[in-house]
Amino acid sequence: MRPMNTSTRTQIRRSPSLADHERATLHEILDAAWLCQVAFHDGASTHCIPTACWRSGEHLYIHGSNGSRLIRVLLGGAQACVNVTHLDGLVLARAAFNHTMNYRSAVIYGQFERHADTVGALDLLMEKLAPGRAAQVRPGNAQEVAATTVLRIALDEAVCKVRRGGPKDDAEDLALPVWAGHIPLTLTRGAAIADA
Amino acid sequence: MRPMNTSTRTQIRRSPSLADHERATLHEILDAAWLCQVAFHDGASTHCIPTACWRSGEHLYIHGSNGSRLIRVLLGGAQACVNVTHLDGLVLARAAFNHTMNYRSAVIYGQFERHADTVGALDLLMEKLAPGRAAQVRPGNAQEVAATTVLRIALDEAVCKVRRGGPKDDAEDLALPVWAGHIPLTLTRGAAIADA
Repeated sequence: MRPMNTSTRTQIRRSPSLADHERATLHEILDAAWLCQVAFHDGASTHCIPTACWRSGEHLYIHGSNGSRLIRVLLGGAQACVNVTHLDGLVLARAAFNHTMNYRSAVIYGQFERHADTVGALDLLMEKLAPGRAAQVRPGNAQEVAATTVLRIALDEAVCKVRRGGPKDDAEDLALPVWAGHIPLTLTRGAAIADA
Repeated sequence: MRPMNTSTRTQIRRSPSLADHERATLHEILDAAWLCQVAFHDGASTHCIPTACWRSGEHLYIHGSNGSRLIRVLLGGAQACVNVTHLDGLVLARAAFNHTMNYRSAVIYGQFERHADTVGALDLLMEKLAPGRAAQVRPGNAQEVAATTVLRIALDEAVCKVRRGGPKDDAEDLALPVWAGHIPLTLTRGAAIADA
């Protein structure tokens, strides 16, 4: 796999030891995500919009109604910044200052482009939601497909930041009589609820 | 509680029936969140950065190192857009086009301001992480407190969007022989892991 672009925008300056520039890490973070946040400026304001996402190859895909602001502004060439963050735990240290969280985060910079194969791309989203399901449901009809725009952003200028494990307290705090450790957090599937 | 500002930026145009302008909904979404995404433009680029957040009264708080770009740019008066999204489920419909997700999302527009009472604000974050813990851990010393900036944004121009429940299929699709329903997703706490 080719390395990711390390621009000034993808240098991690805070806790740089947590930076991860491996493409495999980026893929894993994106593939575990149902949603991303897309930030863009529309000429008047900066916006931050959550939307479904899925990866195929070296692109991250999103979709929306043709007329939505998100789609229109991104198709107009706005510079975008995409974030995916998985919160993996709360880290309770002995010193207030050393409390933190465990997470896997990816940030991607670039411009989105239209992806012409709407049906093929949405089949990949369906495959991610529920493998095999695309063959079972009613496919999109011409009107539904025509109303939908699929966009993608290249995984070129991107960086991950990952924190795992327990607290990192200062040596002089290690003997303090307070519980320290971490509490894992996991997005868990409940029992499926059939439609009435 | 006073109503939230309904600017053109907080009008929901896509699936407007899911819009929620109730302040109680905003509070519930923010109080359930450990992280938010903050979007801002630094004069060169639009960024989307995840960071810890907590609510007190009618403000959402974040913190960071004094020198971080996030803190510097926001203190410089950049217009910010904050998103908090809880993903609550996957919604599997009978038609490909009607697949969606359940979620609770909040978007806040505005400018952050410095909050002078760093220690008091961080005690509230600690109380959210683990009630009562602020009294047990070593408090921040002068150097740690001086290195930290707390910012807050008013909950004035904000809007929520909430989807719950099962799929909404078209009448002519209801008899299709495919399972339809939703799969709840919940951020679940695992067993606490003590530091070695």
